[in-house]
Amino acid sequence: MDGRTDSTSTWLGAPLEQLPTPALTLDQATMRRNAERMRERCRALGLRLRPHVKTHKTLPQALALLQQHPLPGTKRWLVWLKLDCGNGRAGVRPADPAALALARAIAEGAPEKVTLVGVYAHCGDTYGCRDVLAVQAIARATATAVLDFVTVLRQAGVPCPQASIGSTPSCSHPVPEMARLTELHPGNYLFYDLQQTLLGSCHPEEVAIRVLTRVIGHYPHRNQLLVDCGWAALSLHGRDQAPTGCAAIEGHPQLRLVGLTQEHGQVEAVDGQLDFGRFPLGSILALIPFHACATAAMHPVYYVHAGGKVVELWHPVRGW
Amino acid sequence: MDGRTDSTSTWLGAPLEQLPTPALTLDQATMRRNAERMRERCRALGLRLRPHVKTHKTLPQALALLQQHPLPGTKRWLVWLKLDCGNGRAGVRPADPAALALARAIAEGAPEKVTLVGVYAHCGDTYGCRDVLAVQAIARATATAVLDFVTVLRQAGVPCPQASIGSTPSCSHPVPEMARLTELHPGNYLFYDLQQTLLGSCHPEEVAIRVLTRVIGHYPHRNQLLVDCGWAALSLHGRDQAPTGCAAIEGHPQLRLVGLTQEHGQVEAVDGQLDFGRFPLGSILALIPFHACATAAMHPVYYVHAGGKVVELWHPVRGW
Repeated sequence: MDGRTDSTSTWLGAPLEQLPTPALTLDQATMRRNAERMRERCRALGLRLRPHVKTHKTLPQALALLQQHPLPGTKRWLVWLKLDCGNGRAGVRPADPAALALARAIAEGAPEKVTLVGVYAHCGDTYGCRDVLAVQAIARATATAVLDFVTVLRQAGVPCPQASIGSTPSCSHPVPEMARLTELHPGNYLFYDLQQTLLGSCHPEEVAIRVLTRVIGHYPHRNQLLVDCGWAALSLHGRDQAPTGCAAIEGHPQLRLVGLTQEHGQVEAVDGQLDFGRFPLGSILALIPFHACATAAMHPVYYVHAGGKVVELWHPVRGW
Repeated sequence: MDGRTDSTSTWLGAPLEQLPTPALTLDQATMRRNAERMRERCRALGLRLRPHVKTHKTLPQALALLQQHPLPGTKRWLVWLKLDCGNGRAGVRPADPAALALARAIAEGAPEKVTLVGVYAHCGDTYGCRDVLAVQAIARATATAVLDFVTVLRQAGVPCPQASIGSTPSCSHPVPEMARLTELHPGNYLFYDLQQTLLGSCHPEEVAIRVLTRVIGHYPHRNQLLVDCGWAALSLHGRDQAPTGCAAIEGHPQLRLVGLTQEHGQVEAVDGQLDFGRFPLGSILALIPFHACATAAMHPVYYVHAGGKVVELWHPVRGW
């Protein structure tokens, strides 16, 4: 289904500057540091780390599998109950009387088949914060709401051993209240991105992801460079949120990405005249994407690099 | 690389309402009518139709191929020169003296290897139009600019047999001036989409693409439904452009898509109280995407249907 899949292996060992563009690259050493730092944070809090890989909406398939292959006698469905602690997307609100009733129904409805293993909340409202203190206030409120609900369950005689919260901003700046949970489940921290930098979740040098793009045109009358990266390789995320557009251009704070069509990007000077001599045709710019999750969804292969060369090729799973 | 690729074939023959969601569906009969209508338009104008499939930036690979496999003596590189006739993205402006010089260099630089076969322009500025008359004004100006440049070339003794313009809005409402070109190259017309409907390129019933999504949550306190389609299945295109968000919801003009995260969409009533009884959990909504090109880029498989059943599976090519 992807004619390029096999041919990408020819890039193993290649210097980054030889890759066909646009190319999604990941710095192996930076990812390892990011992974270790999050593991260390969880160790310090005494929590399990569950890296959040989105595997949603599988209940119909799970039920079909169950019908075809009944669980052996000793196996049970382990169910997590999702709480909405202010994020306003999915989950039951812990203060809603229906929440306790639902938890009890899960725990007691078919105890030989189903176990209520825990409650969890995604504090995605941290993405609307302007600084780390605001992120931490949400993390504190979310952890407290989750833990209070676990207490309510315990008092009602409904066992619920696990309590988890996630979101990369909150898990990048944990608060002491989190130590009373049993796990954290952030997802973006391995790559980080421009958005996380702006939120204060990471330093710029902790961002592992880039999209490499080549200069394919000089347009002096528009004071613009044309590059071979459009929204098909970057997504439109961040268009109205970041000062430099959907990406920052590494090492060139005087440039910004002002336009993206499907396969083209338009780059201009933030201020004044663009120095075209610095950006010859074929030269490479490294874009730091606003939202790594969205950019990663656009690429069939990720080029993992170390020492300036490709050391691994990652092929993400797609579809539903 | 995509664990679902093989398993999708099990959906051949399935009724649409059984598909796993989110699912990109294409109405075969509508696509056939759209294809025939565009062919008929081109026939009426005496033009060739070149459906625009984006195959960009292949010059480095083409050069590498050439070095490995030199062209046989009778084969030549057939080069099209791209003109910027007001769209402001890629190409040389026809009134720029450099345009004639470039065309001459292509035509005369290595005539045994390279032939200047034509000039073409993408009038993407039609996407900023508010009505069909404005689209047609741009189509007329673009066709005229391209043809005037061909005349300049002819007078300068530079042969250039072909002249092409493209953009689905302009090709959906051709103007008589286009008849003097040799071809049109629209790309979006097979599927059409909400944007093209708003631009007047098509009627709503001519849009072949949908994203099917299921209701996975009722949130009466927010007056919202949660559906299993986020930007990972729709893209963020149109968020600030269409009155109903990144998609319209077929058959339900009283609903709009107010929020998209990676795997979730939030649907609310345009006005007043949402009638949750009409949308039970598991029921399917058909989203009409704002921008078919962007939505199609998010899906590993397209379910082509006729008579309410899947009749073909299309697996798009990805990557660069």
